[in-house]
Amino acid sequence: MYEGVVQDLIDELGRLPGIGPKSAQRIAFHLLQAEAADVRRLAEVLLEVKARVKFCSTCFNVAEEDQCRICTDPRRDPTLLCVVEEYKDVVAIERTREFKGRYHVLGGAISPIDGIGPEQLHIRELLTRLADDTVGEVILATDPNLEGEATATYLTRMLNPLGLRVTRLASGLPVGGDLEYADEVTLGRAFVGRQAAT
Amino acid sequence: MYEGVVQDLIDELGRLPGIGPKSAQRIAFHLLQAEAADVRRLAEVLLEVKARVKFCSTCFNVAEEDQCRICTDPRRDPTLLCVVEEYKDVVAIERTREFKGRYHVLGGAISPIDGIGPEQLHIRELLTRLADDTVGEVILATDPNLEGEATATYLTRMLNPLGLRVTRLASGLPVGGDLEYADEVTLGRAFVGRQAAT
Repeated sequence: MYEGVVQDLIDELGRLPGIGPKSAQRIAFHLLQAEAADVRRLAEVLLEVKARVKFCSTCFNVAEEDQCRICTDPRRDPTLLCVVEEYKDVVAIERTREFKGRYHVLGGAISPIDGIGPEQLHIRELLTRLADDTVGEVILATDPNLEGEATATYLTRMLNPLGLRVTRLASGLPVGGDLEYADEVTLGRAFVGRQAAT
Repeated sequence: MYEGVVQDLIDELGRLPGIGPKSAQRIAFHLLQAEAADVRRLAEVLLEVKARVKFCSTCFNVAEEDQCRICTDPRRDPTLLCVVEEYKDVVAIERTREFKGRYHVLGGAISPIDGIGPEQLHIRELLTRLADDTVGEVILATDPNLEGEATATYLTRMLNPLGLRVTRLASGLPVGGDLEYADEVTLGRAFVGRQAAT
C-alpha cells in the first residue's frame, strides 16, 4: 500500500511492544519528515545497544564490561544479596538509594504457563554465588504477582536450609495512595504486616 | 541511571511521537532481549528510509524515484487533481479506489499558530502545475478540521478565478477528525458526493 521501504518501516515498528498499526504509521511518517541526522542517531544507538550491552557474568545485570558496575564497586556490601527478576527491577531499587548490597538477576520468574521453570532462570548461578558463605542475607525482591510469589516461595524453600537469612520485601499500602483504593489482598497484607507505631 | 547506551536508547525512543518515558523504557528492554538480527533489521530500515525515500518532484508525494508511482502511471487521469495535506492522505484515498486522477501534496495546512502560511506549503508549485490547462478539476481534500478548512478556503479563492472546476470532498467526513482515520466507505462516499466550492 505504501512505497516499499515505508511499509517495511511500519512493519518493523509494529513489532515493538505496545506499538499498534496506527502508532507504527504515525512514527514512520514522523521519521520520514525528521532530520536525517536524528534518524541516523536512533539507528546507531540501536546497533550500539546490541553491540555493547552484555550481561554481567556474576549477577546477570546489564553491563558494558564482563562485570556490571555494581558487582565491581568495592563500596557495595558483599554480605547482602538482593534477588530480582529483571534488570529494570535493579534500576527501580537503585533509584530508592535504600539498598547498598549487590544483586542477582534471575532473568524472569517461574511461570509454568509460559514454560518457564527454575532451570530457565539463573538459580544454579545463585547457588554457586552463595557457596563461599560471603552472603549473610538474601533479600527476595520478585514482583508481588502470581509468578513472582511462586518464585519467591521456591527460593525460600531452597535457601532456608542453607542457614543464611532469607527475607522478602514488605507488602503493604503504596505510599501516596488512598486506602480506599487499595485492593483487598494488599490491604489484608498491610494488616498482617502491621508494625508498632513510633 | 541506566547503563549509558541503554539510557541513550530510551532517550532516542522517547523522542518519537506518542512514546512516553514508560513506553520508551519498555521498548528498550524488549530490544535488549531481542535477537540481534531483529534489532539490526529495524536499524537498517530506518537508515534505508532516509536514504531511499524522496519526494516526487511533481506532486511531493513520497517516491523512491524522481517522480512517484502515481505521477508516472499513464492510466491515471491527468485532468483530475486531488490536493491533500500529507502523504498519508494519498494512501488513505488510494485505499478507497474511488479516485483515478493525480495528487498534489501540500506538505501541511495553513496554521498561523504554528507559523505555517501559504508560502510554507507547495502552493506555488500547484499553480505551476495548473498553468498548462491540462487539469480540468481540482478536488480539495484537506483535513476536515480548522487548519484544513482554512487551507481549502484559501485555495478556493485562489483557484476559482482561474476558470477551472474547484470541488471539495462532501461533508460526511466526521468534523474535527483527521482524514486518514476515516473508514473507506465514508471516504469513498465523500469522493462521489463532492460539490462545487463556493
